[in-house]
Amino acid sequence: MKLGRMNHIGVATPDLDASIAFYRDVMGATDVTEPFILESQQVRVCFVNTPGEEGTVGTQVELLEPTSQDSPVGKWLENKPYGGQHHICYEVPNIHKAKEEFEAMGKRVLGEPRIGAHGTPIFFVHPKDMNGILTEIMETPKEGH
Amino acid sequence: MKLGRMNHIGVATPDLDASIAFYRDVMGATDVTEPFILESQQVRVCFVNTPGEEGTVGTQVELLEPTSQDSPVGKWLENKPYGGQHHICYEVPNIHKAKEEFEAMGKRVLGEPRIGAHGTPIFFVHPKDMNGILTEIMETPKEGH
Repeated sequence: MKLGRMNHIGVATPDLDASIAFYRDVMGATDVTEPFILESQQVRVCFVNTPGEEGTVGTQVELLEPTSQDSPVGKWLENKPYGGQHHICYEVPNIHKAKEEFEAMGKRVLGEPRIGAHGTPIFFVHPKDMNGILTEIMETPKEGH
Repeated sequence: MKLGRMNHIGVATPDLDASIAFYRDVMGATDVTEPFILESQQVRVCFVNTPGEEGTVGTQVELLEPTSQDSPVGKWLENKPYGGQHHICYEVPNIHKAKEEFEAMGKRVLGEPRIGAHGTPIFFVHPKDMNGILTEIMETPKEGH
């Protein structure tokens, strides 16, 4: 495993539209993607694009609103009703190789790779095995971000 | 306010050396800065450098181990003994102007600007005013990162 780009940080919110307004009006974001529903994670989701160094793309903020109270993000919000930092996502060149490597290190990979919000395969690794952080691993999109 | 670069995400840990080993051995980090003590925040701190796009510097992981149980990070760990995501830090060109802007929006700035771990002035803004996230604002270093 070689540390990849920090693609995004996942932020859970009880109100996606209010969070978009916060990033636009308070933080001064000018590039927020159109929200859509990601059925596999039972969330309504969009991305706040942040600037990287020298005009490159920076780490995104992924805003996640649960579509059901019984979903993983819905349950997470029960303990943090204001919302907050939910996970961190790093890119890897090959999702299946990454899964093998994490499992060989005894890390609990949560389910099989599935298509994530960027349209490439992803999986999550248990926070207790990952220095306290729910960690998403995603395959780098082939045609950039 | 214009959204700046996501300089780092702050991660609290009960054991800095174990966290460094985690980022090196599990995540494959190859560039971790030497730990030092930041008295003003009562933490022992270091940075995991992550790759950005096109060879640029990416968002760092700032690892924070409290030097005292009574410190803010020490108290934070009482509820999260494994550690986890503590704050997010964005860059601004001018710290005093940023403070005025946040205060004009009714956001609770926590104390006066002070020198942070990158050697430039920083302040924190209350998570309940910031979409659930303890937010650090730091002045961009003049000579790069």
